[in-house]
Amino acid sequence: MKALFAHAARDLRLSDCDLPAPGPGEVTIRLARGGICGSDLHYYLHGGFGSVRLKEPMILGHEVAGHVEALGAGVTGLAPGDLVAVSPSRPCGACAECRRGLPNHCLNMRFYGSAMPFPHIQGAFRERLVADAAQCVKAEGLEPAEAAMAEPLSVALHAVRRAGDLVGRRVLVTGCGPIGVLAILAARRAGAEEIVATDIAPGVLDFARRAGADIALDTAAEPEALAPYASGKGSLDVLFECSGAEPALRAGIAALRPRGVVVQLGLSGDMALPMMQITAKEIELRGSFRFHEEFRTAVAMMRKGLIDTRPLLTHSFPLADFAEAFDTAADRSRAMKVQLEFA
Amino acid sequence: MKALFAHAARDLRLSDCDLPAPGPGEVTIRLARGGICGSDLHYYLHGGFGSVRLKEPMILGHEVAGHVEALGAGVTGLAPGDLVAVSPSRPCGACAECRRGLPNHCLNMRFYGSAMPFPHIQGAFRERLVADAAQCVKAEGLEPAEAAMAEPLSVALHAVRRAGDLVGRRVLVTGCGPIGVLAILAARRAGAEEIVATDIAPGVLDFARRAGADIALDTAAEPEALAPYASGKGSLDVLFECSGAEPALRAGIAALRPRGVVVQLGLSGDMALPMMQITAKEIELRGSFRFHEEFRTAVAMMRKGLIDTRPLLTHSFPLADFAEAFDTAADRSRAMKVQLEFA
Amino acid sequence: MKALFAHAARDLRLSDCDLPAPGPGEVTIRLARGGICGSDLHYYLHGGFGSVRLKEPMILGHEVAGHVEALGAGVTGLAPGDLVAVSPSRPCGACAECRRGLPNHCLNMRFYGSAMPFPHIQGAFRERLVADAAQCVKAEGLEPAEAAMAEPLSVALHAVRRAGDLVGRRVLVTGCGPIGVLAILAARRAGAEEIVATDIAPGVLDFARRAGADIALDTAAEPEALAPYASGKGSLDVLFECSGAEPALRAGIAALRPRGVVVQLGLSGDMALPMMQITAKEIELRGSFRFHEEFRTAVAMMRKGLIDTRPLLTHSFPLADFAEAFDTAADRSRAMKVQLEFA
Amino acid sequence: MKALFAHAARDLRLSDCDLPAPGPGEVTIRLARGGICGSDLHYYLHGGFGSVRLKEPMILGHEVAGHVEALGAGVTGLAPGDLVAVSPSRPCGACAECRRGLPNHCLNMRFYGSAMPFPHIQGAFRERLVADAAQCVKAEGLEPAEAAMAEPLSVALHAVRRAGDLVGRRVLVTGCGPIGVLAILAARRAGAEEIVATDIAPGVLDFARRAGADIALDTAAEPEALAPYASGKGSLDVLFECSGAEPALRAGIAALRPRGVVVQLGLSGDMALPMMQITAKEIELRGSFRFHEEFRTAVAMMRKGLIDTRPLLTHSFPLADFAEAFDTAADRSRAMKVQLEFA
Repeated sequence: MKALFAHAARDLRLSDCDLPAPGPGEVTIRLARGGICGSDLHYYLHGGFGSVRLKEPMILGHEVAGHVEALGAGVTGLAPGDLVAVSPSRPCGACAECRRGLPNHCLNMRFYGSAMPFPHIQGAFRERLVADAAQCVKAEGLEPAEAAMAEPLSVALHAVRRAGDLVGRRVLVTGCGPIGVLAILAARRAGAEEIVATDIAPGVLDFARRAGADIALDTAAEPEALAPYASGKGSLDVLFECSGAEPALRAGIAALRPRGVVVQLGLSGDMALPMMQITAKEIELRGSFRFHEEFRTAVAMMRKGLIDTRPLLTHSFPLADFAEAFDTAADRSRAMKVQLEFA
Repeated sequence: MKALFAHAARDLRLSDCDLPAPGPGEVTIRLARGGICGSDLHYYLHGGFGSVRLKEPMILGHEVAGHVEALGAGVTGLAPGDLVAVSPSRPCGACAECRRGLPNHCLNMRFYGSAMPFPHIQGAFRERLVADAAQCVKAEGLEPAEAAMAEPLSVALHAVRRAGDLVGRRVLVTGCGPIGVLAILAARRAGAEEIVATDIAPGVLDFARRAGADIALDTAAEPEALAPYASGKGSLDVLFECSGAEPALRAGIAALRPRGVVVQLGLSGDMALPMMQITAKEIELRGSFRFHEEFRTAVAMMRKGLIDTRPLLTHSFPLADFAEAFDTAADRSRAMKVQLEFA
Repeated sequence: MKALFAHAARDLRLSDCDLPAPGPGEVTIRLARGGICGSDLHYYLHGGFGSVRLKEPMILGHEVAGHVEALGAGVTGLAPGDLVAVSPSRPCGACAECRRGLPNHCLNMRFYGSAMPFPHIQGAFRERLVADAAQCVKAEGLEPAEAAMAEPLSVALHAVRRAGDLVGRRVLVTGCGPIGVLAILAARRAGAEEIVATDIAPGVLDFARRAGADIALDTAAEPEALAPYASGKGSLDVLFECSGAEPALRAGIAALRPRGVVVQLGLSGDMALPMMQITAKEIELRGSFRFHEEFRTAVAMMRKGLIDTRPLLTHSFPLADFAEAFDTAADRSRAMKVQLEFA
Repeated sequence: MKALFAHAARDLRLSDCDLPAPGPGEVTIRLARGGICGSDLHYYLHGGFGSVRLKEPMILGHEVAGHVEALGAGVTGLAPGDLVAVSPSRPCGACAECRRGLPNHCLNMRFYGSAMPFPHIQGAFRERLVADAAQCVKAEGLEPAEAAMAEPLSVALHAVRRAGDLVGRRVLVTGCGPIGVLAILAARRAGAEEIVATDIAPGVLDFARRAGADIALDTAAEPEALAPYASGKGSLDVLFECSGAEPALRAGIAALRPRGVVVQLGLSGDMALPMMQITAKEIELRGSFRFHEEFRTAVAMMRKGLIDTRPLLTHSFPLADFAEAFDTAADRSRAMKVQLEFA
């Protein structure tokens, strides 16, 4: 069986990998699709990000779906042939954070394809995957490509829940990569009344509009595009910051009304924040990280036709063409979501 | 000019009514449509409800839309011919509740068609209406019949906001009259994952299904229909109680999981509540009353196609046929929302 | 070793009971004090309450403190001789509610001295008790009698947290038995600005005043005592309903301002609630049930002198005099908190 | 009548000022005490802060108390001789923010002693002051020096309410000037279980300890003093950041557990924030600015003995010695709160 390993920056290799038999409560999944995420790209392009660096070969990938092939002892509710979305999140269920109801902050988290602890947590880009049945959500009625969107959609749904009630709110989304566009879809689904989106890459703004943004602004061409929203003490209610770019966050904070809420999804290093505005407008800045129960919700939303992620799926490549897939994903002028085809 | 007065139970009269000139900040509106609400029906059928009784003739009606005909001094943003939805809510803006940001609890509220204070607050079922420009929301692109749905939709949107974040929640709606069906639409718009609806009138359950209920149950035919949701400590997250009926609330509380939320919209007299369940499951029961800023949101949601209220509009009658209109509205086996045609 | 069993209404017996050796993670505690709670009294006086009935002999008691006598394997952080407050709450840590961070709603709860499941969960009124080390909180610096107040204080602290931020709030407490008086202490500690208390037993009102109530009203002598607070739409912010009595809850709801919060601690059967007021004032009624992490907080608050429960300790009796103890506890004109002395 | 004007950095002058007669709803107050705040010091030392600069002479001062001397027409509830604390906050009551219940964000705020709009809002350091009766809270039973603490205490109480429920929480306060020490008092009053305080000036740590801090750490002497709290994913629940210093905020964020809350009170320019930690731990950073209804609460808390601000009052000087007063206030090694004596 082959798996896609990152050895170092610009060094991906399709190599052999053992396939264990499924243990009790586990299933074997024949992978169908796997989406390339920004963190996969960071490992590919830079060998990591910030202080998180590859120290040994690591299988990439955490946005995957496939078909159940075999069941371990005691597994119920799944049958061979079922299409499942596989959650990459494996909290321990026993630590203080898990017991507080915050499994996304599990102190012993084993999230697929993460170089954070050592040995690294191996990822899911492999032809077959043995996973806990509890990680699998049945995706009947979806295409495998959609099912593999459950993971990034979960990230967006979690962010939307972090924002609190959105009904009738005026929302800003900064950064219209896959997570930003999914945040637009999720915010619209959650009742946002007006959605303004910004990016510095004009190509992605069409995706934002198709996802439901009322207005999509190119802040490279027009750096002051948000200024009208910032007049007085600001006017927008909620900012989903998906770019990880300091200028985007700063412009967004200026556009928020007093008590406006920032949900920070975009990952970044340190940023210089306008503390006087944050304090004087009593802005609420909330981090949003991964997800937990939203994974099940993401699959349900897609199955019911309440959120349609298909317009984001711009490219897919056979596993053997992984190099082209990663290079395509790295080019924002061409690609939104790029997936690998495993079967 | 004619207006529709309630004199006592079963005594409605179309009578002459003066039309003042619009004062500063006011506009004259030529009414187009007016929906008959449950409270209008109570005045018609019973002369009031609970301790609220007609003590003098009162013009009914508070779900209205029409076209601007004349502007008072200083009005901007409106022009003759504009279709507007007219909010019946007129808080004072100066009392302690208004200053707390709770205008729906204004201590000096003058809500159209209410017999609560004396002299009564006259309603909006009249051929022409002088209203504050601030009550008017432009409804360009909507039919007048839809614009007149802004008011009951506002009630549902307010209730949904009272429930807090609904993304991924499992929701129960008890009572599928117009408010219940609008609550289904609003909950779906707000991200509810699963919606179960109940009523004792089988005819309305189809409206519930068309509005997005995943499951609609006839609790007259099957009184224990919710029992599967009540096993263990219950399973549903939120109940929108729109019936004002004690059995519905009691069955709903049993179906809620610990910390489940009840939003009580249905008006009723005293009810015997299962306090042991409420306490031991730490249920949260929240009243929801009228609306404020949700009126503007309701119009915006309909204009953007985010909520479609048209399937609820089952009947309309010329103003002269008010008697047939009210009798139709009183017959749940035939009617969902009944409107009067003013022009 | 002796333990205090309830066999039926008015049938308590001090009988022999086995003492197992402490297993891994367990400790043996030599009990010092045990407080008699309202539920103990219900078993004693009526053989149960509502549908919860004694079906086999059950050891009573869940408000206990004592000294560590022996340690099972692997126990750290405790030593023989340590005074500990023992939490009676034993959630499973693995069910859906525990994983949601709501262990007080554990689907497999084994709370000391509860006849709810069958076989019943045996209680803690025994000379020696083997408990999980995790149930024990060190109470150095406290008297055993105070340490045994940790449990009812936890109930009050949990209720206060259910109310949300209390700083500057005007609070009503209805029912001034031990839980009501502890709610006064906890609400004051949490920043309440004004505290009004009511009861129908004049004797307890002095305890309420000493605990910090600004005003304590005898609603037996003056049934309309709260009417001044109910003028207009009401004036108080939060009600802690500790009586389980319908007239208290109804009068309290009338005294609350719009959006006022009721925290219902008092256990009761069905109550007829004023739904029109609840809906029109958008009252929030929240059940409050037991506690979890507040147990540790309760001990810490007493140790730091932030809450002083000693004025509530009116009586204690040697274990052998259990009959007099229970009869005293049942007489509200004489007793606030009655404890058994085990050693 | 004399008032204390700031003309520029290091240029304060005691000059004549007119005293108008009190208009309808106004009162004349003979000032007794006025506390020197950090913003007063900024005008004195630097002529402003950030982009807020003196452009014309401005009377300083906004922490004042005095005795009612004369009443304008229609004033009730106050009588000559009454000691009152005077709120410096004068929201318009009519703008969008006031109507949302957020008067501290009033779009037309006229807060005493602010150079933010032009012409500047004149302050309260004058022998006599004409104020709205609504700004005055009776302070019977307090010393004037305490009454003049109502304003900074309001800032701390507002911050504590921004933090949400504090019962049983572990709290960190960074910066132990007057606002930090008042935050300690307020957090303790609101039910905090453990309070850790830090400052770089060892002298103020004793004030922190006397106010209730369990632990007070000198982070100048020991820059890594908070490291033990930051192990794993951090351990503290809430940070009140009162220093406006980037290293304090950064160390505090590291010490917070996942979902920990930062309430930012300290004013500052831009700060470089650790966004990876904020995002990955889902930290909530909330600005806190001024106060509104907390002013009345502050007076009530002091009058009831629930919060004692007197230990903060280290120095007072006759008005004529204003120069010494300001120089003393500027020296953190000597002074906590410095007040001017007006009468």
